[in-house]
Amino acid sequence: MESDVLAFENFLGKEGVLKDDITLNTTDWTGQFKGPGSVVLFPKNTEQVSAILAYCSKNKLAVVPQGGNTGLVGASIPVHDEVVLSLSKINNSFSFDDTMGILKCDAGFILEDLDNKLASLGYMVPFDLGAKGSCQIGGNIATCAGGIRLIRYGSLHAHLLGLTVVLPDEHGTVLHLGSDIRKDNTSLHTPHLFLGSEGQLGVITSVTMTAVPRPKSVQSAMLAVTSFEKCCEVLKLAKSSLSEVLSSFEFLDEATMKCLKTNLDLHSVLGTPSAFCVLVETSGSNEDHDMAKMGAFLDECLSKELILDGVLAGSSADATKMWQLRESAPLAVSRDGYVYKHDVSLPLKNYYELTNVMRERCGDLAKSVVTYGHVGDGNTHLNITSEKHSEALENLLYPFLYEWVVAHGGSISAEHGIGQLKLPYSELGKQPEERLLVKKLKNIFDPNGILNPYKMI
Amino acid sequence: MESDVLAFENFLGKEGVLKDDITLNTTDWTGQFKGPGSVVLFPKNTEQVSAILAYCSKNKLAVVPQGGNTGLVGASIPVHDEVVLSLSKINNSFSFDDTMGILKCDAGFILEDLDNKLASLGYMVPFDLGAKGSCQIGGNIATCAGGIRLIRYGSLHAHLLGLTVVLPDEHGTVLHLGSDIRKDNTSLHTPHLFLGSEGQLGVITSVTMTAVPRPKSVQSAMLAVTSFEKCCEVLKLAKSSLSEVLSSFEFLDEATMKCLKTNLDLHSVLGTPSAFCVLVETSGSNEDHDMAKMGAFLDECLSKELILDGVLAGSSADATKMWQLRESAPLAVSRDGYVYKHDVSLPLKNYYELTNVMRERCGDLAKSVVTYGHVGDGNTHLNITSEKHSEALENLLYPFLYEWVVAHGGSISAEHGIGQLKLPYSELGKQPEERLLVKKLKNIFDPNGILNPYKMI
Repeated sequence: MESDVLAFENFLGKEGVLKDDITLNTTDWTGQFKGPGSVVLFPKNTEQVSAILAYCSKNKLAVVPQGGNTGLVGASIPVHDEVVLSLSKINNSFSFDDTMGILKCDAGFILEDLDNKLASLGYMVPFDLGAKGSCQIGGNIATCAGGIRLIRYGSLHAHLLGLTVVLPDEHGTVLHLGSDIRKDNTSLHTPHLFLGSEGQLGVITSVTMTAVPRPKSVQSAMLAVTSFEKCCEVLKLAKSSLSEVLSSFEFLDEATMKCLKTNLDLHSVLGTPSAFCVLVETSGSNEDHDMAKMGAFLDECLSKELILDGVLAGSSADATKMWQLRESAPLAVSRDGYVYKHDVSLPLKNYYELTNVMRERCGDLAKSVVTYGHVGDGNTHLNITSEKHSEALENLLYPFLYEWVVAHGGSISAEHGIGQLKLPYSELGKQPEERLLVKKLKNIFDPNGILNPYKMI
Repeated sequence: MESDVLAFENFLGKEGVLKDDITLNTTDWTGQFKGPGSVVLFPKNTEQVSAILAYCSKNKLAVVPQGGNTGLVGASIPVHDEVVLSLSKINNSFSFDDTMGILKCDAGFILEDLDNKLASLGYMVPFDLGAKGSCQIGGNIATCAGGIRLIRYGSLHAHLLGLTVVLPDEHGTVLHLGSDIRKDNTSLHTPHLFLGSEGQLGVITSVTMTAVPRPKSVQSAMLAVTSFEKCCEVLKLAKSSLSEVLSSFEFLDEATMKCLKTNLDLHSVLGTPSAFCVLVETSGSNEDHDMAKMGAFLDECLSKELILDGVLAGSSADATKMWQLRESAPLAVSRDGYVYKHDVSLPLKNYYELTNVMRERCGDLAKSVVTYGHVGDGNTHLNITSEKHSEALENLLYPFLYEWVVAHGGSISAEHGIGQLKLPYSELGKQPEERLLVKKLKNIFDPNGILNPYKMI
């Protein structure tokens, strides 16, 4: 290992190799995953990544690529003694075509920094995450990050055009996949294979993607709804009448609102208590038009008795208050006790049924059973809390919950990925033939199996 | 071969095997590609496709999958004696979730039929092609079809969720890839590898994808512009001020307008002749809002002197007249003589430079050098005509044109693909390592190399 460190120092200089105080890079931000690991590498460019991966391939050293380390499934944390390869210093090159809306940048750029650069040019990155202040664009690609505006701008598949990746082979092969233009049908669309690949196939060092025009008007409204069926009706109406300006359709149930009140002293903006709260956002280019659309939508919701009450944010302070409720939900739940967090997606007809099933199943063993999430995408963050970690509760939850999701046509990981956390369940509902195909694909990119082992594949 | 036909008849019944009058399936619609071929198979479901591919794998028979046979590069036409596998009878299963906007259907559905089904539910397919009356959704996926609304709704990558595919292995393995829900991060996103795969990896028999709310208001305007630089300025303004309702930004140059007039007696809707015509379309949910946005946009174009003249369609008849110009451009050009058609994409700064370079290069050998296309996507359909096929002109054109495109960061096939037509140029600008990767990927899916040989890969 000493000779390996010397080799790394030879490639990167001493300042590029961290051996002490590495816990920030071997522990995830939730503290849930702690890896041993003994060295963290900070290459500054693609060539250095290539040198590292060539060396590690020849010497059969396992490597964990790491972006902003904001993941939720432990995918960027070493399990054994893997070398941590941080992308955080690869953040120099940035270019943007403000007619075509095409962004090309190094993979280590922090999402919020990119978005700030685009803001001055009238554009924005087409997704928004709670972790935007520290997550990196390369990691976003490797995770296929979702977030609160997917209903409007689509997944990252809608935006990815090209990637520079380094393969973990003995040459540290550098591949430029896809292109820097909007349309290119000259080969297999291999960049898309890296979306959601969780660092299993190669190390992403540069990203080309589209950005979207920055909205000039953002409107928010919070609605009180009495049943989940009505939430679905409201969603259908929003798609039809808010249509092109609809940018978020988020959801909090009564138990979430109670957690917000009890644990964070955050109160609903609605006078009327209700079983469900829906947060609707529009983003558009004309405030008058968007206000008129939102007003007509709320009127129709009321006249059709789809909602009990609705509040349109009259100021940005009002909107902030609404969004604070949605964005504080994870924190409010974490203050409730020990949390069993979930990120699953389901057909809408089964979306809240899962909550009801789990509430009944957990009974008194659970302190709270709360659900919030991106209902417009079928993505539920069902959280179950208890005073402290309870093996009895855990045994009730797993594998039952994930089996239920798969049996109802859902996904056990909607946006967070598999990583370490969901590895035990990653075969659920998958065909053996699909698993075999994925292993063969992995083997093409990573013939020695050195990249991010003991995880997704 | 007689025994093979008997085997196919055994799988499909006699009605599923066509041996005579097969020219419709062995010639492309332009008449440019004619394959020999001796048998066309019409399976009715995935199981029959599986039986065919298992048989062909064991017996090393080459197979060409064929959708609506509307491609432009000969990808669905046999080169030698390949068996043609038509998907046109696999068009029974159709389901649509009109809250989530998720469509699941057999691959053989004709695009326009699908769109008509969605229309009654308030949705539409998120792309539009001239071939919509005969192309099939499975073929659209295999081609990664583009079309005139990509600027708004994104490529098919933005919409694809899941696929059923049959592999050309000895088991005729049926794979269900991806899922039927909006978000699923539990495995490599393998369905996207089939987008633009041109029938090289497997046969698509079922598609799950998102549809989009059908616009209630569609507005069109035609603008006269004096320079290509100003066209780019107009595009930038359209993105900013039409923003969320912008659904098309198409382009015709003066030579195209002349062809339309001379060959089809179609006249510009603009009083003022100009070097360039731009066709702008908005699609939205509120006619008043969209008209107001379009009006303000035209005013700003005029006041900033970006355009010489602009006409807003006052009726659907007006709009039809504008779109007829754009949609008749290919026909007008084909009436001009022998046509050298192109489908390339370029950074905007080089978009029209290509036309100028080729005009100068071809000189008197060319009858017309015309350019129209999806300028909002950087996609140009540069067409060069001559009275009759001219080897001298051809030698001037190729490989020069494609080399020029690649040297300027463009793609030699923006949306049509490689197929047979562009195979001689498919390595241009590609890294040997990328080529090797693509061959390895092909080999995983098609170990015997029986699927669509002598083409893209």
